[in-house]
Amino acid sequence: MTAARDLQLDTACPDTRALVEHVTSKWGVLVLLALRDRTMRWSELKREIAGVSEKMLIQSLQTLEADGLVLRTARPVVPPHVDYSLTDAGHEAVDLLAPLVFWAQQQVQG
Amino acid sequence: MTAARDLQLDTACPDTRALVEHVTSKWGVLVLLALRDRTMRWSELKREIAGVSEKMLIQSLQTLEADGLVLRTARPVVPPHVDYSLTDAGHEAVDLLAPLVFWAQQQVQG
Repeated sequence: MTAARDLQLDTACPDTRALVEHVTSKWGVLVLLALRDRTMRWSELKREIAGVSEKMLIQSLQTLEADGLVLRTARPVVPPHVDYSLTDAGHEAVDLLAPLVFWAQQQVQG
Repeated sequence: MTAARDLQLDTACPDTRALVEHVTSKWGVLVLLALRDRTMRWSELKREIAGVSEKMLIQSLQTLEADGLVLRTARPVVPPHVDYSLTDAGHEAVDLLAPLVFWAQQQVQG
């Protein structure tokens, strides 16, 4: 029961809860997966994640950036060029997250 | 990008979203972890998951039972004896979930 008790402390922690919620959120999942293989520009992300609104994409990216999972790199050029990529922590997150989402998909379809 | 596109379809599916939300919810996580090692009675679960209200524990168990992750077994005795255990799918879920929650804990503490 040690693991459960440890995690009890853990999920009682608002910061841990928030991080789990961010990476498992609808658009959070998709952003992390989209950036798994490569860096993307805003317009690429918007195209890749069909159905996302500008507002939700901005919000998701800002949240994941604040969590230290996504890196935003603005190049000082005209017109603006902004790249989004995963940090090491972001890669860790998506590697743990993807199997859970695939499992849920299989459960629902099965 | 195939994986991301597949999951895009996936997380657009309300059933998949709901299942991910249930297993990553605050009390859902704790119920799954508590039942990982063994079957428990209601009173044991209530004691194991410190801080949970009766209402939230009932709700979480009903949700996870409806998802096919938790099995509720009522023995026809007096006084009532109800056991809760994980189904095979429940074990799959917790095995995928635990590493993600531990990771989040480490991130927050790190």
